[in-house]
Amino acid sequence: MKMRKAGNKELKKLIEKAKEGMKNAYTRTGMFPVGAAVLTDKGGIYLGCNVESVISGMGICAERCAIDNAVAHGEYCFKAIAVVSKLEEPLKPCGMCLQYISEFSQVAEHDIEIIMIGSKGRIKRSSVNKMLPGSFGPKDAGLNLDRYRK
Amino acid sequence: MKMRKAGNKELKKLIEKAKEGMKNAYTRTGMFPVGAAVLTDKGGIYLGCNVESVISGMGICAERCAIDNAVAHGEYCFKAIAVVSKLEEPLKPCGMCLQYISEFSQVAEHDIEIIMIGSKGRIKRSSVNKMLPGSFGPKDAGLNLDRYRK
Amino acid sequence: MKMRKAGNKELKKLIEKAKEGMKNAYTRTGMFPVGAAVLTDKGGIYLGCNVESVISGMGICAERCAIDNAVAHGEYCFKAIAVVSKLEEPLKPCGMCLQYISEFSQVAEHDIEIIMIGSKGRIKRSSVNKMLPGSFGPKDAGLNLDRYRK
Amino acid sequence: MKMRKAGNKELKKLIEKAKEGMKNAYTRTGMFPVGAAVLTDKGGIYLGCNVESVISGMGICAERCAIDNAVAHGEYCFKAIAVVSKLEEPLKPCGMCLQYISEFSQVAEHDIEIIMIGSKGRIKRSSVNKMLPGSFGPKDAGLNLDRYRK
Repeated sequence: MKMRKAGNKELKKLIEKAKEGMKNAYTRTGMFPVGAAVLTDKGGIYLGCNVESVISGMGICAERCAIDNAVAHGEYCFKAIAVVSKLEEPLKPCGMCLQYISEFSQVAEHDIEIIMIGSKGRIKRSSVNKMLPGSFGPKDAGLNLDRYRK
Repeated sequence: MKMRKAGNKELKKLIEKAKEGMKNAYTRTGMFPVGAAVLTDKGGIYLGCNVESVISGMGICAERCAIDNAVAHGEYCFKAIAVVSKLEEPLKPCGMCLQYISEFSQVAEHDIEIIMIGSKGRIKRSSVNKMLPGSFGPKDAGLNLDRYRK
Repeated sequence: MKMRKAGNKELKKLIEKAKEGMKNAYTRTGMFPVGAAVLTDKGGIYLGCNVESVISGMGICAERCAIDNAVAHGEYCFKAIAVVSKLEEPLKPCGMCLQYISEFSQVAEHDIEIIMIGSKGRIKRSSVNKMLPGSFGPKDAGLNLDRYRK
Repeated sequence: MKMRKAGNKELKKLIEKAKEGMKNAYTRTGMFPVGAAVLTDKGGIYLGCNVESVISGMGICAERCAIDNAVAHGEYCFKAIAVVSKLEEPLKPCGMCLQYISEFSQVAEHDIEIIMIGSKGRIKRSSVNKMLPGSFGPKDAGLNLDRYRK
């Protein structure tokens, strides 16, 4: 699937918003805050952070949180998602988040850029189709997603 | 734990926002949209909707979505949460959402009102401590939550 | 819904198996192992333990693990589930597990006993319908579950 | 990380067990049953199936179910995992399952083979390190996993 990379202004805003999300992370120990921000095809930005639970199977990563936040506001088509942590090395989204982003790339009918930002500003750029190629999604389950494209 | 019920103005706003969330629900078939809105102790309101995935164990209910949205914006202490669906009978939050709300009642150090709204306007009001009494939370795991109270 | 309590022999076996599960728990720190065992309507017993992940939203509690184990072996109708931890006070299943057990009580068409065992042998007995009354399940979603009753 | 591929006898047994798991799948509509089987480093095999819930964020895929089943029996080090569905094309594990398998490859300190089986017998073989390279795991979170290697 095709992809349009985020522009310089968009990139700057995404990083800023992902860092803002990181400040709000709700974690068990405060030791591993993560922030994310998603850019919609229309240019809107929604942030997210990790929310940890004491129960196995609950809680959410920053990337999924940002996407859910966008969906709650009626946005389903994403151009890029940025993620930032306290690690010097840019953090890759986990497989669960890649799966989630991948499902929404089927909604948007295009690839989604993944922008990973290290604590000292190092940036890695890739895409969900490169990082989790050929993953199962709503189209493979025969779902009609037309109503989420507008 | 003590609880302050949402006032009439707050109730009206919460219902409005939960219905707005419901309109944005991302569901497999479009058949079961759910919306939610959470009221913070400071008076802010954050909305959420259900986001369904084709993968078992992924996706989120409206109530957890609304809470994650609030957390992403730095809000951790909630007074009430409202949930609305297309069912005539007011829909109860599922056990997973009650667990999540319950964990945040330990953050806020007070009970959280649950407001359930049927499709024809019927309203049921209860609380998370009544609906899921004595549930395990971050305090029971020995976590210090002071930094999330401000 | 009706419920048949586990008999004395069944109770003894369930506790033994839940403790065996607890020994196998896979946890981040080794500090909070939990074990569970589920008794099927036909008298079979399947064990489970908590499996923690470093990713928010992944991993499983002991009760859901035991149920999934039974389902993988073709068992869907449960009479009772036992849970044991290192806490002196019998541990209640979390809301997420109660929701899961509740869904299977709709499959079995009867209530399911919950047996909670403290580290020094104290036992509390209740049921999923008492602990999470009126929760949403597959019947409420209009699903036909006949093929899972045999 | 290194990997030893499953031998022919092991492969045959894994496929058989994954198919047995598929027969037991608990699904909403009966339309998408999936089975899995995991081979431990010691040669044991544990099966799993998908267990669907009506609640977003609950339920489990066949691969995670098989792993949880093995863990409940005290097995943490896996050589291979097989997955089978009704699709002619061999089904890839979703990103969430790849993440889970990947975490256990850090426990075993070696790569884990992924064996995907189509409905007409077509087989694809890969590994979790190839399918989800460089994913975050318990070692990256600083956890000591020694007690799970034996």
